[in-house]
Amino acid sequence: MRMYDCISAKKAGKELSGEEIDYIVKGFTEGGIPDYQMSAFLMAVCLKGMTEQETLALTMAMAKSGDMLDLAPISGKKADKHSTGGVGDKTTLIVGPIVASLGVPVAKMSGRGLGHTGGTIDKLESFPGFKTGLSTEAFFSQVNQIGLAVAAQTANLAPADKKIYALRDVTATVDNMSLIASSIMSKKLAAGADVIVLDVKAGSGAFMKTKEDAAALAKMMVKIGNGAGRSTCAVVTDMGQPLGYSIGNILEVKEAIAALHGEGAEDLMDASVTLAAQMLLGAGRAADFKEGCAMARGAVADGTAFGKFCEFVAAQGGDVSFALHPEQFPCAAIEHVVRAERDGYIHSMQTEEIGLVSLGLGAGRETKDSKIDLTAGIRMEAKIGDYVAKGDALAVLYTNDAAGVAAAEKRFLSAVAIGQDAVGKREHVLAVL
Amino acid sequence: MRMYDCISAKKAGKELSGEEIDYIVKGFTEGGIPDYQMSAFLMAVCLKGMTEQETLALTMAMAKSGDMLDLAPISGKKADKHSTGGVGDKTTLIVGPIVASLGVPVAKMSGRGLGHTGGTIDKLESFPGFKTGLSTEAFFSQVNQIGLAVAAQTANLAPADKKIYALRDVTATVDNMSLIASSIMSKKLAAGADVIVLDVKAGSGAFMKTKEDAAALAKMMVKIGNGAGRSTCAVVTDMGQPLGYSIGNILEVKEAIAALHGEGAEDLMDASVTLAAQMLLGAGRAADFKEGCAMARGAVADGTAFGKFCEFVAAQGGDVSFALHPEQFPCAAIEHVVRAERDGYIHSMQTEEIGLVSLGLGAGRETKDSKIDLTAGIRMEAKIGDYVAKGDALAVLYTNDAAGVAAAEKRFLSAVAIGQDAVGKREHVLAVL
Repeated sequence: MRMYDCISAKKAGKELSGEEIDYIVKGFTEGGIPDYQMSAFLMAVCLKGMTEQETLALTMAMAKSGDMLDLAPISGKKADKHSTGGVGDKTTLIVGPIVASLGVPVAKMSGRGLGHTGGTIDKLESFPGFKTGLSTEAFFSQVNQIGLAVAAQTANLAPADKKIYALRDVTATVDNMSLIASSIMSKKLAAGADVIVLDVKAGSGAFMKTKEDAAALAKMMVKIGNGAGRSTCAVVTDMGQPLGYSIGNILEVKEAIAALHGEGAEDLMDASVTLAAQMLLGAGRAADFKEGCAMARGAVADGTAFGKFCEFVAAQGGDVSFALHPEQFPCAAIEHVVRAERDGYIHSMQTEEIGLVSLGLGAGRETKDSKIDLTAGIRMEAKIGDYVAKGDALAVLYTNDAAGVAAAEKRFLSAVAIGQDAVGKREHVLAVL
Repeated sequence: MRMYDCISAKKAGKELSGEEIDYIVKGFTEGGIPDYQMSAFLMAVCLKGMTEQETLALTMAMAKSGDMLDLAPISGKKADKHSTGGVGDKTTLIVGPIVASLGVPVAKMSGRGLGHTGGTIDKLESFPGFKTGLSTEAFFSQVNQIGLAVAAQTANLAPADKKIYALRDVTATVDNMSLIASSIMSKKLAAGADVIVLDVKAGSGAFMKTKEDAAALAKMMVKIGNGAGRSTCAVVTDMGQPLGYSIGNILEVKEAIAALHGEGAEDLMDASVTLAAQMLLGAGRAADFKEGCAMARGAVADGTAFGKFCEFVAAQGGDVSFALHPEQFPCAAIEHVVRAERDGYIHSMQTEEIGLVSLGLGAGRETKDSKIDLTAGIRMEAKIGDYVAKGDALAVLYTNDAAGVAAAEKRFLSAVAIGQDAVGKREHVLAVL
C-alpha cells in the first residue's frame, strides 16, 4: 500500500477501503506518512467527499489510535453528552446532575476553553479546591458512588485526530463534514460511553451557520455512533445568540446554579431538559422523549438535581459552600454597562464576535497557554426579540483589565443589530434527531 | 497576504490574482510557505483548475524564480525546441543542424535522460571528447560562430518549478494541465529563446495518452509562450510507438547520422522536418510552413545539415571521425534478437514499457544518480502495421548485462500486440498548431 495511490484514488473520487484508511491514519500518526502527503489527501477529501463507510472507517481508525477507555468497571449504561461548542453553553453543569440524580451514570471527560468558546473544566475550577485531574480509579469509583464525575482529559484519546486536526487547521481543510464528524466522534468513541447525546450548534456562533448544515452533521455523527455500536442521538440547537444570559466562567457557574434551582433562562432550560431527556431515553431510563423531559424538569423542581450538583462538587474536592452561597464567588473589579445606542428590537447577534469580546475581557484563551480570568465575562441584559430604548443596558462587561473596556464595548455594540421592526424570540431547540 | 487564504480561495474555485500567485511561488521557493500548505494548494488546483491568466502568472513567477537567460549577445532570432519526452526521440540531433545550416541560430540547453525517456546530453556524450558543460561565454560564442550549441543546463533555471515538481511528484498532483504547461514553459521562458517550438507527444509512451489531451496541452503552452512575448507554436506527434527504429544513446546517434544523410525512417524524418519548418517559420526564415519543410528537406538532401552536424560536434570537442565513420562507435557485448511468437500484424505497442525495457538493458537512468551504458538499447525491426511471421525478428536488444536479457525479452514481447487483421501505418505528425 502506498500513500501516493491513496491520494490519487481519492482525487479521482474513488472510495477507499477500510484497510487503506487504517493505513493512512496509522502511517500519518506514526510519522511514516509526511504532512505534505496528508494535506494533499485532506484537500482531496474536502473536494471529493467521503462515503459513509469511509467516514466510519476514518472515525474508528482515529478512535483506535490511542487509548480506548473501557468503562466496564462502572455499572449501568453510561451516558455522555457532547456540544460542538457554543458561547455561554453551561449545559453540562446542569444536565450532568439532572441525569445522575435520575440514576443514569455520567462519566465525562471534558476540555478547556479555546478561542471564542468556553470549556467545562475551566468553569468547574471556579470552585476553590475543585480537582479535575482524577486518576482512572478515582474517576470510576466516584461515578459508581454518586453517578457523576467530570475529569480533564488525561488519557491519550484519539491522538491521530489531534495530529490531523492541527494539519487541517493550517491547510484550509477544516470544513468538510466527514472530517468534522469523524474528528468529534473519534474522541467520543474513545471515551467509552454507551449512550452519546450530541448537541450540534447552528448559527453565527457555531461552525455550522445554518440549521440544515448542522442537521446534516448531526445525522452523520449519529450514523457513525450507531455504526460503532453506541446508542447515539443528537439535538440541533441555536447559536444565533449566546445561550442563557451569562458568558465567562464564574458567571456561567452562577447561572447554572440558578438554573438548577429552577430559575434558568428559557433557552437554557429547554436545551438542558432536551439533552437530559435524550440521555435518559438512550440509557433506557425513560420510556419516551416526553417522559424524559418530564423527569428532567421534575428533578430540577424537587431539588434532587441541585443536591446531586453539590454532592458532585464536594466529591471532587470543591468548596460546596460556594454552590450553596454563590454570592461568595469573587467578582471582577470592573463592571461596565453597555447601553443601546438607539431604540429598537434586537434583530440579530454575531455570537462568535460576542464570544471573542468575552475572551478579550479575560474569560477565554487565545492560545492553549493563555491564562484565564475566572471572574471575567459578559452578562447579557437583552436577547433577540427584546425591545430596548436608547440608553438601556444591553450587557454588562466584567473584567480586571481597564485598558480593554472601550474596545470591548465598541466591538460588542457592532455585534448586536438593532432594527425598527418587531422580531420574534428565537427557538432554541431547532431539531431533535 | 496569507497562504491559508490562497488555499481557501482556490479550494472555493476562485481565481487568484497575479500578486497572490507571485506570493505563493516566492514563499514556497524561499521556504516561508511549508510543503504541507503547498501540497494542499496544488491538490485544490488539480481539482478546481486554473484560468489562463492564473496559468500565465504561475509560469512567469516560476520562470523569474531563478536566472532569466539573456541571449542578446547572440545575433538574430534564436530558436529553441522542446519535446515533452518520448522513446527513441533523437530529433534534436537532426533538427538543430538543419535549422542552423539554414541560418537560424539554435542555442539549446538540454537535459539528461530519466525514466523511460532519453536525453540529448547523454546522446551527445557518445562522441569521445564531447563537452556539454560550456561556460555562458563559450556557449554564446559558439552559436555566433557556427549557429548551434547544445549545453547541459548549468544556469539556475526556474528553481521554483524544480521544487514544486518534486512535491507534485509525491502528492499525486502531477496531472493537471495548467501545472504541466507552466512547468514546461517556465523553463523554456527562462532559457531565453525568441522562438519556441513545442513537440507534444501523445500516446502510450507519453504523459498525454490521447491526441485531444496533447492538443489541449499544446494550445495552452502556445498561449503562455505568446502571452510572454515569445513566438511559440506546437506540433502534436505520435508516441504510440517509439520514434524511428533505435532506442539508446549510441544507437540513436547512429540513426540520427543516417537521417542527416537522408536515410531516416519516415516518421523520424516527418517529425524532424515539421519541427525544423516551424522553427524556420517562427524565426522569419521561411515564408510559410510548406516552404520551411522544403528548405529542411533540401538541407538534408544537399548535405549541408550533416556538414553543420560535424562542425557542431567538432566545436564542442567531440571526435568528428565518429560522425563520419559511425561504425567506430563501440557495440554492446550482447545482441539478442527478439522473435515474433506468432504470425500477424503489429497492432499496437506499449511504448513506455519498451522505454523501460531499454532502461533495464542499461540505456537509461532509474534515478538521477544511475550510470548509463551508452551502447545499450533496442533496435526495432518492425513497427505498427508491419506483418511478421512467427520467428521473424521484432527487435534486437543490446546490452552488456547478460543476466537481464531473458526478462527484457519477455517484457518486450508482452509490450507488442500482434493480431490477425491488417492495420495501417500510424501517422506520426498528428497536428501542427
